[in-house]
Amino acid sequence: MKEGDSLMVTDGKGFFYDCTLASANPKQCVLNVRHRLEQPKKRDYSIHIGFGPTKVMERNEWFVEKAVEIGIDVLTPLLSQYSERKELKTERLEKIAVAALKQSFQAYLPVIEGMALFKEIIRQPFEGLRFIAHCHDLPKDPLAKSCRRGENVLILIGPEGDFSRGEVEEATAAGFIPVSLGASRLRTETACLAALHTIHVINSLT
Amino acid sequence: MKEGDSLMVTDGKGFFYDCTLASANPKQCVLNVRHRLEQPKKRDYSIHIGFGPTKVMERNEWFVEKAVEIGIDVLTPLLSQYSERKELKTERLEKIAVAALKQSFQAYLPVIEGMALFKEIIRQPFEGLRFIAHCHDLPKDPLAKSCRRGENVLILIGPEGDFSRGEVEEATAAGFIPVSLGASRLRTETACLAALHTIHVINSLT
Repeated sequence: MKEGDSLMVTDGKGFFYDCTLASANPKQCVLNVRHRLEQPKKRDYSIHIGFGPTKVMERNEWFVEKAVEIGIDVLTPLLSQYSERKELKTERLEKIAVAALKQSFQAYLPVIEGMALFKEIIRQPFEGLRFIAHCHDLPKDPLAKSCRRGENVLILIGPEGDFSRGEVEEATAAGFIPVSLGASRLRTETACLAALHTIHVINSLT
Repeated sequence: MKEGDSLMVTDGKGFFYDCTLASANPKQCVLNVRHRLEQPKKRDYSIHIGFGPTKVMERNEWFVEKAVEIGIDVLTPLLSQYSERKELKTERLEKIAVAALKQSFQAYLPVIEGMALFKEIIRQPFEGLRFIAHCHDLPKDPLAKSCRRGENVLILIGPEGDFSRGEVEEATAAGFIPVSLGASRLRTETACLAALHTIHVINSLT
């Protein structure tokens, strides 16, 4: 781009800025803001996903990209009993989130938290519905039936080896609602995306 | 694996075979079938997606992987007015579908058709609901509200540049129901997965 060109930027906090390039210096460019435009919050519910990051980093990256496109508010990588990945650098995931935000013309950048302990997230205060998805043979209902319109959701999805039975029981005792995500066995990242999208679909119904 | 080992195979047509390895010759191994197990059809509806394949092949591959995990019956790559990709080799997509089938313990391999013309697919007979998703400013309802339980679905999703306005009008005239997939602008492959998952969520509700 050259000086005088128009471009749109976002602060990731709900605003778009319609700008003109005043100085095109690649080391420090200067923009003149012509208009500030607010992206109205489209949703009356927020979605927070706590997930066991997969060993293959590429799979976490795609989940972040797709989650941002479809709409998410908070992502928390979890360290739980059967975690295959015990450390996670969030810098690259944040870059992917920014790219997906721009690609999908949105102005609210989701928060990607640092890794948290399973034991911490289940004790954390949360205003809304709290779910834990798992594959154990324990009582559970489909997420689509347990989710309700207009309510904030926190949902936990386990790593490749799932949450342990003990963890599911611990979360249930802490008030989490155990749920299933459908008939077929899904990979972690597919389960995360399926859960996220289920919440949006339920909220889109009258 | 060595001779005498047990393994489970599938024919992709609804059957699992519990086998013993009789000859472990890597060029031509022989299995003895102990039991044949039928995977009952879990769904009373089928899903056929016609999609504009993306230029970046990796994005088509991930869509196929995720679609198989979540559940799909027929995939048809489409050639339409704004197609970025005009040719598509389906061999690799078929291999990915087989891997995803095994990963998710399923026994029905979806059909991946060869590339079809948009004009052909809209004239093709289909018993069930037919939708076309698009981003034009033309009358449409959210897919979640237009979809009904227990009905077969054929849905068309455009390429990166979407279907042309003329194509949307042509499909609508041929009986396709125009739909939207939500508030945010989705990449082609995300739109495909979102559409597929919406149909499953609607069918999971009573």
